[in-house]
Amino acid sequence: MSITIVEVAPRDGFQSIGPWIPTWRKLAIITALARAGLNRIEIGSFVSPKAIPQLADTAELLRGCEAIEGLDAQILIATRRRAEDALAAGARHLSFVLSVSAAHNQNNVRRSPAQSAAEYAEIAALLPPGTKIRLNLATAFDCPFTGRVAMADTLAVLADVAHVVPGAEIALCDTTGRVTPDHVGQLFAMAQDRFPGVHWNFHGHDTYGLGVANVLAAIGAGVRSIDAAAAGLGGCPYAPGATGNVATEDVVWTLSRMNIETGINLARLLAVAHEAAALAGAQPGGRARQALAASARAPVAEAV
Amino acid sequence: MSITIVEVAPRDGFQSIGPWIPTWRKLAIITALARAGLNRIEIGSFVSPKAIPQLADTAELLRGCEAIEGLDAQILIATRRRAEDALAAGARHLSFVLSVSAAHNQNNVRRSPAQSAAEYAEIAALLPPGTKIRLNLATAFDCPFTGRVAMADTLAVLADVAHVVPGAEIALCDTTGRVTPDHVGQLFAMAQDRFPGVHWNFHGHDTYGLGVANVLAAIGAGVRSIDAAAAGLGGCPYAPGATGNVATEDVVWTLSRMNIETGINLARLLAVAHEAAALAGAQPGGRARQALAASARAPVAEAV
Repeated sequence: MSITIVEVAPRDGFQSIGPWIPTWRKLAIITALARAGLNRIEIGSFVSPKAIPQLADTAELLRGCEAIEGLDAQILIATRRRAEDALAAGARHLSFVLSVSAAHNQNNVRRSPAQSAAEYAEIAALLPPGTKIRLNLATAFDCPFTGRVAMADTLAVLADVAHVVPGAEIALCDTTGRVTPDHVGQLFAMAQDRFPGVHWNFHGHDTYGLGVANVLAAIGAGVRSIDAAAAGLGGCPYAPGATGNVATEDVVWTLSRMNIETGINLARLLAVAHEAAALAGAQPGGRARQALAASARAPVAEAV
Repeated sequence: MSITIVEVAPRDGFQSIGPWIPTWRKLAIITALARAGLNRIEIGSFVSPKAIPQLADTAELLRGCEAIEGLDAQILIATRRRAEDALAAGARHLSFVLSVSAAHNQNNVRRSPAQSAAEYAEIAALLPPGTKIRLNLATAFDCPFTGRVAMADTLAVLADVAHVVPGAEIALCDTTGRVTPDHVGQLFAMAQDRFPGVHWNFHGHDTYGLGVANVLAAIGAGVRSIDAAAAGLGGCPYAPGATGNVATEDVVWTLSRMNIETGINLARLLAVAHEAAALAGAQPGGRARQALAASARAPVAEAV
C-alpha cells in the first residue's frame, strides 16, 4: 500500500503565524520539504491580505516554486475571483474550499454552501488545459459554531459537487480536530460507496490528540491521500496550546512502522520540521519530532 | 460499551518527576482523581528509594488512601521481597511487572523473564484472602534495547503466566510508545484467542503521538481496561520533549465523543490534570487539556 501525503504547512500552518516570515525563508522551507519527497505542497492561498497577512506573498512563492523540480504546488482559493487571480499568477493546481456548515461558510466567505458550490462549478469550467482543481469540504465532520455535522449533510453537499470535475480529489476536512476515528471511517465508507471515481483525501487536526488515529481510520476506510503539516503547525494564535494540523513527521513515522510506503525521507523531513518549529511565532505540535530527537540524544531509556 | 480506566499518574507519572512532591500533595491529587470517578489508581510502588526516590512514601500513601471511599489502590512491585513489603504495609492490590524482553527485565530487576515469572507464581501463592494481583507485561510490543518484540515471544511468556491466577487482569504494556495500532490489535486478538478468561488491559504511551490511536485499537480488539495518566505525565526526565503515558483526559474525552461510557467526570478530571501538569518538574503531555482550556477562553475559532 502507498499513501500520498499532501504537505500543508506553508498554507494551513504559516497562516496562523503572526510575525512575518520572509518570502525567501518560506521558499527555502518549501524547497526542503520537496527535497524530503513531499512533491505535493499547498504553498499558499489567494485571499485578502487583510484577512491573512502572512499569505500575501503567494504570487511570489508561486513563481519561486517553478524552479523546484517535480513540485505540484496547490493554491487554496475560496471564490471565483481569487481563482482567476491565482490562474493569472500561474497556478496550475487550485484547491477550492467550501464549508458543509452554512454558519462556517458564511463566516469564511459570506456565501451559502450552495453559492460556493455553484462557484466551484464555474471555476471548474474556466480551468485552462493542464490545470487541476481539488475540492476541500471544510467542517465535513464538525463545525466550530454548530458542533457535530450530520453525515447526511456532508453527503448532500457531496451529491452537488462530487461529479463536477470527474476524477478530482476531494478532501473531507476535520476543521476542529474534534472528529473521532469511528466517524471518519463511517463517513468515508459511505462517501466512497455513493460517489465512486472520486479520489478522496483526509485533512485532520491533532488538537485533541486524535491526529494520527483519524489518519489511520481514513486509510483503513480506503483513503490514499492525507493532508499533514510539518511540525504540526496550524495552531490558532488565539488559543495557546491548541495545536494544529496532524504533524507530517508523526504520520510518516507511523506509516513507516506499519510498512506503508509514502516515498518520504524521514531524516530530511525531520530537519525541515525542526526548522519550521523554530519559526518565530510558531506553535509547533506533533510528537515524533521531539521523541526522535530525545532518543537520538539517549538511545536507550529505562522505563517500566 | 463501558471501559475501565486505571489511573497511573501517581506511579508511572510521578516516578519521572525529579523535585520531591510532598506526600500530602500526592494524596490530594489521588483524592481528586478518585472524586473524578477514577476508582482504580496505581498510587505508587515498593521499589528501592535509591532507584526511584519519588516513590519512597508509598507506604504512607497507602495508609492515607484508606480514607478514600471506594478506591482500589494498586501498588506496583517487581520482586517477591517487595510484594511481601507491600502486603505488610496493607496493600490489597498488587501490580506485578515483568518484561517480555530479557534485556529489559535484566536491566530492570536483574532477573530473567523466567525467574520473574516464577516469582509471580510465588507471590500469587502467598496472597492473603481479599487481596488481588494484576500482571503487567512490559515490553510486550517493543523494547528500548532490542526494538520490536515478536508476538510469538509475548505469547510464549503469556503461556507461562496467563493461568497462574485465574481471572486476573493482565496488562500488555507498550513501554516505548513505538507500537502502532495494527500491532496492538493483532496481539490482543491472538492473546484473547489463546488465553480465554483473562481480563486484558492495555498500557500505552503517547511518545510518538499514537497514545489514543493505540487505546482505540485495543478497545476495538475487545480490551475493556485501559491505563492512562492524568496530564499525560510520565515523560522521561532525560529525554526532553518525549512525553509520557497517554493522557487520561484525552482518552476520556475521546471515548465520551464516541458514546463509550467510562464513569468519569471530565470537568473534575481536567481540574486535577491541570494541577498535576503544574507540578514542579512535571513534563505534561496530552492534548485535550489545553485544547479544552483554549476553547473555553475562545468558544468559537475561525478555521479553514
